[in-house]
Amino acid sequence: VNLPRQGERGLLETIRRRFGDHAPPAPRGMGDDCAVVSPSAGGVLLTTDCLVEQEHFRREEPPYFLGRKALAVNLSDIAAMGGDPTGFLFTLALPRGVKRRYLDELIDGLASVSREHHVHLLGGDLSRSSGPLFISITILGRTGDRSARASLSRSGARAGHGIYVSGGLGGSAAGRMLLDAGWRPRLRNRSLIGITRPRPAPVDRIRHRSVMRAVRRHLDPSPRLALGHQLRAGRIASAAIDLSDGLSIDLARLAEASGVGANLIRPAIPIDDSVRACAGLGIEPLDLALHGGEDYELLFTVPPGKEKDLADLDAIPIGRVVSRRQGLTLQEAGGRRRALRVRGYDHLRR
Amino acid sequence: VNLPRQGERGLLETIRRRFGDHAPPAPRGMGDDCAVVSPSAGGVLLTTDCLVEQEHFRREEPPYFLGRKALAVNLSDIAAMGGDPTGFLFTLALPRGVKRRYLDELIDGLASVSREHHVHLLGGDLSRSSGPLFISITILGRTGDRSARASLSRSGARAGHGIYVSGGLGGSAAGRMLLDAGWRPRLRNRSLIGITRPRPAPVDRIRHRSVMRAVRRHLDPSPRLALGHQLRAGRIASAAIDLSDGLSIDLARLAEASGVGANLIRPAIPIDDSVRACAGLGIEPLDLALHGGEDYELLFTVPPGKEKDLADLDAIPIGRVVSRRQGLTLQEAGGRRRALRVRGYDHLRR
Repeated sequence: VNLPRQGERGLLETIRRRFGDHAPPAPRGMGDDCAVVSPSAGGVLLTTDCLVEQEHFRREEPPYFLGRKALAVNLSDIAAMGGDPTGFLFTLALPRGVKRRYLDELIDGLASVSREHHVHLLGGDLSRSSGPLFISITILGRTGDRSARASLSRSGARAGHGIYVSGGLGGSAAGRMLLDAGWRPRLRNRSLIGITRPRPAPVDRIRHRSVMRAVRRHLDPSPRLALGHQLRAGRIASAAIDLSDGLSIDLARLAEASGVGANLIRPAIPIDDSVRACAGLGIEPLDLALHGGEDYELLFTVPPGKEKDLADLDAIPIGRVVSRRQGLTLQEAGGRRRALRVRGYDHLRR
Repeated sequence: VNLPRQGERGLLETIRRRFGDHAPPAPRGMGDDCAVVSPSAGGVLLTTDCLVEQEHFRREEPPYFLGRKALAVNLSDIAAMGGDPTGFLFTLALPRGVKRRYLDELIDGLASVSREHHVHLLGGDLSRSSGPLFISITILGRTGDRSARASLSRSGARAGHGIYVSGGLGGSAAGRMLLDAGWRPRLRNRSLIGITRPRPAPVDRIRHRSVMRAVRRHLDPSPRLALGHQLRAGRIASAAIDLSDGLSIDLARLAEASGVGANLIRPAIPIDDSVRACAGLGIEPLDLALHGGEDYELLFTVPPGKEKDLADLDAIPIGRVVSRRQGLTLQEAGGRRRALRVRGYDHLRR
């Protein structure tokens, strides 16, 4: 916990002030070499994810949403395990050109998600970067039970279990494409109030409302913490993963960890309403839903006897777990199955 | 814990193999969205530190030692709290030009320190970087007692307590200067076996043995975990901090957190034997010891009644805690005190 050690005092004061009662109490916490956390009754969960400028975001994107997203994508990993987040550390490596205003907005974004999900700042590290801006976050969470096995994992899916997702897919990837095509969000008081068309204007008629929804899905994803908690605490799901890299690749990971195959029903795959905004960009909507990534919905499997418990939950059935031998397949409306192509975001392969 | 999700399979296999029984068991741990850690009996410690290329290291430095140092500097924060490390996460953002051989060496360095201190890899994140190489590490530790207050902190020093350091200072900064001046380590089987002079050769006669020691102090610091554990478990130290940024600035931080002043005895400050190697560079040895940084020794305070318990420990007395009103002073051999200049490494101020 080295914020004060390597940090500029003013920035630290900003952090303390903006996090309010979610900041670590001084001098403990942010002022010591480590954060001290009370022992947890259940298992301790730890996860880390970094966002690197040009790889995961661009400097012209609103820094308030960047701060929100940096914390949200980590919370999504806690959601996938059915855990409850308790605290987090964040590391910033800052290029020299970054303005104080930009940092304040970024920190406010972090602080807003921290308050929404009651996850306290425990500390972090500040450094310079001679290149891109780098944000790394580590989250500490817990599961309510004594046994560490009481958390969800990727490995519990068995043939016959139903496959579900928690919401529409492809919206975030559509938003990324639209931002890359020159659409620009208009903000007021940190709310997305409009969207500006690229110039020259696109020839296709694209509905601004769909563009705004796609851009919002990309810039400000919501971690599915409440759902993950219910799926674990109610012992409903047999396996879960969050959709960070794309349905096809994240399903392949869950299937591999569980030693199973999976059959997806093509017309059942929910495509986010916003994806129509990308029609003018020449992209097949299903491709965005299958391979787009960054939706941060949960993908989970449920044994047949538990499917009745899903009534009040966000759970859209999209297929069924099959034997490993059958592999990963996509079933057309007519019943014919073909192999599911697995594609998605792999940072080291681009 | 997203190594497999965003990572290249081959690199992950390397990581698993090189960490051996210190790697997380598959599919749990590295294969899930979070690491699951058994609940700790005592307080949970968390700390994070990042190393950024060009800020903290240069690409031409041996990657094996870079891996070792990345983990060691984080362990040093656990040592400063008197904790015992249990596990860690690491995040790498890799420029495209990094060779596989370089990464293997870096990972071997991490794995070697992981084995030496019984700290298990819990997971991490891999990404690309369009600029410098980033390494961010988060360590999880514990203190043996039920009460979180049983860890050491920066805030317990009181007027009258003795001030101690655990070893000679300035060696690491001397090593950095010598590397910058063109001296190059010669390695065989990852051991430093010699040193190559810069060309043109320096005019001063510099002892190669001192240069090697200084370079080793810089490239391969040793976290003072055993000492920190003893100072806490024996309830010997009233406050502690690790010397990452320099004696003067780290003492100022400890004094501020404790609400006290401090008087250092100038001739008592231990200057590392290697610092003489820098004589030819025109640097005052005491300046390196006071302001050099990266020594990763412990600085700690001890109440008078406990000083007898230091007999078998690495503890060099260098001064005494005074009232806050008296500030920070440096006392000459003759007894005269002058204000201690506080300078040191601040990543955001360079």
